[in-house]
Amino acid sequence: MDVRKAIYKRRSVRSFKQKPLDQQVLRELIDAARVGPSAANRQPLQYVVVTEPGLCQQVFDCLKWAAYTAPRGVPQPGFTPTAYVAICVKKDLALAVGAKYDLGAAAQTILLLATAQGLGTCWIKTMDAPRLSQILAVPEGVELDSVVALGLPAEEPEQVDLEPGQEGLEAIKYWRDDKDQQFVPKRNLADILFWNKYSG
Amino acid sequence: MDVRKAIYKRRSVRSFKQKPLDQQVLRELIDAARVGPSAANRQPLQYVVVTEPGLCQQVFDCLKWAAYTAPRGVPQPGFTPTAYVAICVKKDLALAVGAKYDLGAAAQTILLLATAQGLGTCWIKTMDAPRLSQILAVPEGVELDSVVALGLPAEEPEQVDLEPGQEGLEAIKYWRDDKDQQFVPKRNLADILFWNKYSG
Repeated sequence: MDVRKAIYKRRSVRSFKQKPLDQQVLRELIDAARVGPSAANRQPLQYVVVTEPGLCQQVFDCLKWAAYTAPRGVPQPGFTPTAYVAICVKKDLALAVGAKYDLGAAAQTILLLATAQGLGTCWIKTMDAPRLSQILAVPEGVELDSVVALGLPAEEPEQVDLEPGQEGLEAIKYWRDDKDQQFVPKRNLADILFWNKYSG
Repeated sequence: MDVRKAIYKRRSVRSFKQKPLDQQVLRELIDAARVGPSAANRQPLQYVVVTEPGLCQQVFDCLKWAAYTAPRGVPQPGFTPTAYVAICVKKDLALAVGAKYDLGAAAQTILLLATAQGLGTCWIKTMDAPRLSQILAVPEGVELDSVVALGLPAEEPEQVDLEPGQEGLEAIKYWRDDKDQQFVPKRNLADILFWNKYSG
């Protein structure tokens, strides 16, 4: 899939078909993250890919989903993710702040390539990290940071543009309509792009 | 360009042809970053795109390049970037840690779409941020975070895989050979990917 198409097609998905994912596709996601940008090329990230159904349920129970649309925005029974990528930081390799940037880039790489492969994704930072670290046997010296949930999408959230100048917390809350369609508001380009000098 | 191809083609470029970039292409990069993932959909990022040659020189003077291969790894006179994207955080919109993740994802989105458009990129965090903030007239309440340098590439750095278990700071230092070709070592997939539970 074309890069631009994947960028615009990627949306957080929270409803998945119950079909196992191809292990080779998942391996390719991590290989893609592997060659991504890294502060001072330190490459402190490691990945645990979870596909075993019992473990997937345990991971699911540690995650906090969809602040604005809970409880309906949380994956319903029979529509939960069928795989997860837990992104971890090997602390002895990480620079003070660099790992957070590497993490953002790695997660977006995984999201875009997964989207191009027809998968739905949701990148989640809010979780019971101590409990999940125990479940995945994350060793000393490694920090579990965030999780990408994956599966064949059973919904297609839609992006909508805000008006120029539209501000405030209410404006950016995603929502579901009465047909259960999820909508995600994004700020107008006029509010975030400046040429040569800041005029905002 | 296919997503996977862009992911593997993207490398930090530090030598550029002196041709101005198309404004519409640059606008599309920011629009792509705009629709990227954002913690709680807060969208705290703003972008200053610098193309004016005098300003480009001033931006260049604020950046610190290529720790491992300086001075040759620094863009030489006549081969400096022809545009920059300064990525900024609007502090009243940012969650405590969320903005760093948004930043990483936004930067990678810009890097991948730019690569797909035939541009070379280098994402730089080490800089004289107070001086650059002043040059770009970044207002109170906004924090300049990092810069993506852009231009038509005048070099093609090459990725090489480390052996499994190859560790240490020497292993991950990128280098230039006697033909001035840049090589970038990346960790072996065997060292970063675990299935279902951590075994590292």
